[in-house]
Amino acid sequence: MSKITWDNKSYLLGGERKFLVSGEFHYFRVPKEDWEKRLILLKEAGGNCVATYVPWILHEPVEGDIRFGDIPQRDLEDFLQLCKKLDLLVVCRPGPYQYSELKYDGLPGWLCENYQEILARDIHGNIFRGSSVSYLHPVFLEKVKKWFDVVNPILAKYMVAKEGPVAMVQIDNELMGIHEWYGGFDYNRDTMGFGTESGRYPVFLKNRYSNVESLNLAYGTSYGQFNEVYPLKDGNAKKSNETRRIKDYQDFYFQTISEYIYLLYKWMREAGIDCQIVHNSANPYMNSYFLEAVKLMGKDFLLGSDHYYNLNQDWNQNNPTPQYAINVYYSNEMLRLMGYPPTIFELPGGSLSDWPPITKEDLLCCYMTNMALGMKGSNYYIFTGGPNPEGASHHGDLYDYNASIGALGDIRPTYESQMIFGKFLEENAWLAGSDHMADFHIGLDWEQSRSSHYWNGKRGMGFSNSDAWKFLRKGLMTTAFCASYSCNLSDLSNPIVMEELDKPLVVATSACMSEMIQNNLVEFVKRGGKLILSPVIPQLDENFNPCTILSDYLMAGGSGRFEKTSPVISVGDVHNILMTGSLWVNESRPSEAQGIAFEETSGTEIGWKADFVGGGKVIWLGFQWSHAKHEHSDMLRCLLAKLECDKSMIRCSNPNVWTSIRSNGEKHMLFVMNLLSAKMTANIEVSRKGKDDIRLADIVLNPMEVKYFEIEGEIEL
Amino acid sequence: MSKITWDNKSYLLGGERKFLVSGEFHYFRVPKEDWEKRLILLKEAGGNCVATYVPWILHEPVEGDIRFGDIPQRDLEDFLQLCKKLDLLVVCRPGPYQYSELKYDGLPGWLCENYQEILARDIHGNIFRGSSVSYLHPVFLEKVKKWFDVVNPILAKYMVAKEGPVAMVQIDNELMGIHEWYGGFDYNRDTMGFGTESGRYPVFLKNRYSNVESLNLAYGTSYGQFNEVYPLKDGNAKKSNETRRIKDYQDFYFQTISEYIYLLYKWMREAGIDCQIVHNSANPYMNSYFLEAVKLMGKDFLLGSDHYYNLNQDWNQNNPTPQYAINVYYSNEMLRLMGYPPTIFELPGGSLSDWPPITKEDLLCCYMTNMALGMKGSNYYIFTGGPNPEGASHHGDLYDYNASIGALGDIRPTYESQMIFGKFLEENAWLAGSDHMADFHIGLDWEQSRSSHYWNGKRGMGFSNSDAWKFLRKGLMTTAFCASYSCNLSDLSNPIVMEELDKPLVVATSACMSEMIQNNLVEFVKRGGKLILSPVIPQLDENFNPCTILSDYLMAGGSGRFEKTSPVISVGDVHNILMTGSLWVNESRPSEAQGIAFEETSGTEIGWKADFVGGGKVIWLGFQWSHAKHEHSDMLRCLLAKLECDKSMIRCSNPNVWTSIRSNGEKHMLFVMNLLSAKMTANIEVSRKGKDDIRLADIVLNPMEVKYFEIEGEIEL
Repeated sequence: MSKITWDNKSYLLGGERKFLVSGEFHYFRVPKEDWEKRLILLKEAGGNCVATYVPWILHEPVEGDIRFGDIPQRDLEDFLQLCKKLDLLVVCRPGPYQYSELKYDGLPGWLCENYQEILARDIHGNIFRGSSVSYLHPVFLEKVKKWFDVVNPILAKYMVAKEGPVAMVQIDNELMGIHEWYGGFDYNRDTMGFGTESGRYPVFLKNRYSNVESLNLAYGTSYGQFNEVYPLKDGNAKKSNETRRIKDYQDFYFQTISEYIYLLYKWMREAGIDCQIVHNSANPYMNSYFLEAVKLMGKDFLLGSDHYYNLNQDWNQNNPTPQYAINVYYSNEMLRLMGYPPTIFELPGGSLSDWPPITKEDLLCCYMTNMALGMKGSNYYIFTGGPNPEGASHHGDLYDYNASIGALGDIRPTYESQMIFGKFLEENAWLAGSDHMADFHIGLDWEQSRSSHYWNGKRGMGFSNSDAWKFLRKGLMTTAFCASYSCNLSDLSNPIVMEELDKPLVVATSACMSEMIQNNLVEFVKRGGKLILSPVIPQLDENFNPCTILSDYLMAGGSGRFEKTSPVISVGDVHNILMTGSLWVNESRPSEAQGIAFEETSGTEIGWKADFVGGGKVIWLGFQWSHAKHEHSDMLRCLLAKLECDKSMIRCSNPNVWTSIRSNGEKHMLFVMNLLSAKMTANIEVSRKGKDDIRLADIVLNPMEVKYFEIEGEIEL
Repeated sequence: MSKITWDNKSYLLGGERKFLVSGEFHYFRVPKEDWEKRLILLKEAGGNCVATYVPWILHEPVEGDIRFGDIPQRDLEDFLQLCKKLDLLVVCRPGPYQYSELKYDGLPGWLCENYQEILARDIHGNIFRGSSVSYLHPVFLEKVKKWFDVVNPILAKYMVAKEGPVAMVQIDNELMGIHEWYGGFDYNRDTMGFGTESGRYPVFLKNRYSNVESLNLAYGTSYGQFNEVYPLKDGNAKKSNETRRIKDYQDFYFQTISEYIYLLYKWMREAGIDCQIVHNSANPYMNSYFLEAVKLMGKDFLLGSDHYYNLNQDWNQNNPTPQYAINVYYSNEMLRLMGYPPTIFELPGGSLSDWPPITKEDLLCCYMTNMALGMKGSNYYIFTGGPNPEGASHHGDLYDYNASIGALGDIRPTYESQMIFGKFLEENAWLAGSDHMADFHIGLDWEQSRSSHYWNGKRGMGFSNSDAWKFLRKGLMTTAFCASYSCNLSDLSNPIVMEELDKPLVVATSACMSEMIQNNLVEFVKRGGKLILSPVIPQLDENFNPCTILSDYLMAGGSGRFEKTSPVISVGDVHNILMTGSLWVNESRPSEAQGIAFEETSGTEIGWKADFVGGGKVIWLGFQWSHAKHEHSDMLRCLLAKLECDKSMIRCSNPNVWTSIRSNGEKHMLFVMNLLSAKMTANIEVSRKGKDDIRLADIVLNPMEVKYFEIEGEIEL
């Protein structure tokens, strides 16, 4: 088999940059006699990999009786041998969890029924549901270890390094989903060790605060010892010290997840699994829940994400939409910034629901949008199904999932979309090594993206992290796409932000920003960087303690909400901008600053620009918006113009048509997306270095159509 | 001008059934020199009516200084005369509220700034926002009366009865929106009279409970007098007596709205306004908030609704969708059941937001969908705009709204959709007198549709009203559309349900059902009706008191939730049905009943069918679903087959293509809707009496396309 490696740009198969094209293919569902025929269909659609769960519920039907190979549905090894024969890599997902519409989410029934002490609990001690466990519960771990002790050695025999097909093994499945969706964080007392000196939670607090006096100072409490401290209920905090306490619990909870990941990882490695260990975040908004794990595991781990657009009628969209594209964009960018080739371990191949339908047009649009926005590896969930093993599924005899290859082997219209996409990837293989080209950077403060549990914006502590995160997506990113600006996300906690000083950095700020990020931004400006901050200038660190490094350097004061009925907002020469969010004023500002934005009826300054020693320039704008009007685009252009950076590589005449340019340095591909239900036309210009602009006139895009154009010559930034 | 009358089928203009086609046209924004030109454009698009606000903020810029005619923007009378000249009816909306992106929602600034005692308050006494008033506050009413005393006599001069153009005058605008969206119910102490013997709230309680002992019994309290009673906070109830107390406050609040409507109505009538008085519910889900008003006002009032599909990026959909069609469907049906010709006083003509875009394809689809599902009158909001009067608007110099005729008079592509729709209405004028043809009836318990404030389904009191309401929309209605069944809603509180005994009646039940409805259903069965109840058999009345009229008649017991991991659900011969909601069992059932539905692994009966004296048949199914799979359609067909009523007028091969047949008894029109982003094809058969079925093969529908076919002959039910 090809050796598989990766960097944050792409996978390398046998040393060559390649796109990982996988299809979810359950040996325990697809009839054995159909395996080869359907695997060949996957290869014909461009597949070079298959993924499968190895369901605990199926292989250990009775406790202690772990079975492989006794019936065709348990013939894992035959399946792996066949994949090897067909030169297909394999991603194995031995759990413990599978989900996959299996009973008990894929855990054995005997485990959930006979050992209820392992179940996750809410803060009141209530069980969420019968199959949501507390990951680190000792009894659960003991049972998992026994399962792993059997399944892992089997997988280990088939490692790529041993000329086998298994290139990746996945730890668990969509971790935290079974908590998040059914109750919130897990507060299982035994797992978390509340009240006991050596318990996980007291130890975490001790590590964080060293002594209980510091904790009391932070929490406004008067505990005598760490083991007296219990978490506060998520959502109930009114004061910042309570909010901090909830945030601490979240940090702790995420740390337990990293501990769980590390433990399973260790067991895998001990069993001889020496391939890439991976995991799939359940969706874009959960990617940052894995920061602790990513930090702990480093390159010995690879996080991907799952990018569905619709699984039932309650989803916000029936088809891919611009809002979906924003999710895809930030998700892929997050994975890239974590150091991984953006991999979508579950890219829709169908849906359990027949309605709303998964159409071939929507699917192809989904694939191309993910591609245009940075996807480097993918796995169709599912490529094909089959009969559910008896007693293992919670619904139906057939697991069809409306997949492109039906449960009975029939070829569906959606297969055509996979063929087209596969062909596109084959013909444009160089895109595997491509980067997204950017006019400017949008700063990412990870903490903002995971703050909704502890700081939902309604707690009177200034502009919240979750509001900033919303502003980033619905304001900045959406406006950038509508204005045909190309942006990369930039990890603010990484000093690398300072490496591209020629490009402006736009940061959606909240009342809080860590010392590290404040220092990075100061350093960025000191070295001559161009920075736009909106809507506030933080005065606190991420734990709500005073921290004015950035504010002091800028010589700017704190920010207060500016309440005004019917404000008239002007930014530069863009007047009367629709208020779709909130306005903020600064208590003080750099003495040399120029006012650039005003609430006109009161003459109040809501934005300034200032120059700093070393050539750095800073714009502060006290306006948080949700993109609604073309004037929001004009405003962004105007701000960038004040930094002399308003030019964009791409000019698109139609704000409803979104674009992306990817390049490997030699070749350039322009993607043009219509994620709306009506036909769109657009004229597009792309700047080139030393050559005339490319002009693409009257591009017509059907609903859900993504077109692409290879651009000759070098793009002008 | 044509005399205008109406019944619940349609409007009649000069005695002829006609569709009311109106366009919102603000004389205070459209430049006077453009009035005629643009009104002619409206007429050319099929318009026979215009609607305009008469903004208080504009006409009373300083308290006591009410101005008309001094500047072109205040030339209401010239405008009305021009409409008369052009033979256009007028809907006037003199407020007090306008919204319309005017400052203070159209109230004068001096009123909101100088009389803050009039503002609505939450239960803690906090003001929601600076322009949300407490409608019945005496100071507010005093100011409104002075405004009305000037504006109403002007309008009265232009009544249709006096050969003027004014056919309708609207009371206020989207009542309760300024409460609902910014805080909830109004608890202004002065308005509601908490604590005072003659206060509105104590008097309401006295009328409801007669003596305080009855109230104490109902609330589990020990008050000495009615004026000691204060409302409980919405959302905090855990017990049924607390829930009842919150529901009482809601009933009281809705009653104050009816009192307010009546008062404004009276002032209008006193001023000589003798035309139709109307109001627009802000959206479908608020229609039932007006039941008290509808009951109080009778035919001297006409309620319509507003049917937007997208006004900004936070909406659940960017374009019309099947989910939107469900809203349109039940909204139009509700208005019809109230006795009105379903009128959409704000049908999208554009959007304040430039993005997501309002496209001509989406708009035409929206119009045709509303038409197919019962709309009989409409008003494009807005048809055309213009410069905002100085100081009156909270945003921008121009109020363009992306309307079909731009603020500067330019004709936009969306005008084409209005032309096409206008032409369709002209060519098919008979549709004004058409009814929707139905295979069966879906019962409407109004209370369910307005229960989310007091009973959100998380309160352990059995299957809630709001869950039943969700089941009705996402389960029953959606399944019916996907299965190409045609249904009418049937008002369960009206004995008229018994008039169509040949058609089955399907009722989504909650734990509560009023005595009146229980009696009506019993009577329906006694007379030979065929009834399907799902998922529970109510044991309580709407106030949570025991009420087992229906249960006793059926000889069936109460319902308990049936909790089972991975249940296997079968209904008739449809097996293994996807569980997308909840399961319920009956404590007891009619002894002669046949089991028709089971949880198979446990053998538990979750549905039965029983025959009753007089030929009535009842099916109870303990399954609440959200439509996801074709088997949900099969299940519905199976239930109807057990009542020998599974035939449908229409059979559509594609469940993603939805249909509607309208008929005036002589002519029949089939509407075929594709509300998805991909092209759809369908084969459709329509049954005819004494003739071959009509077969429409290979109908191809573009995304957002609605096609229509006139069907010859009589349709077979």
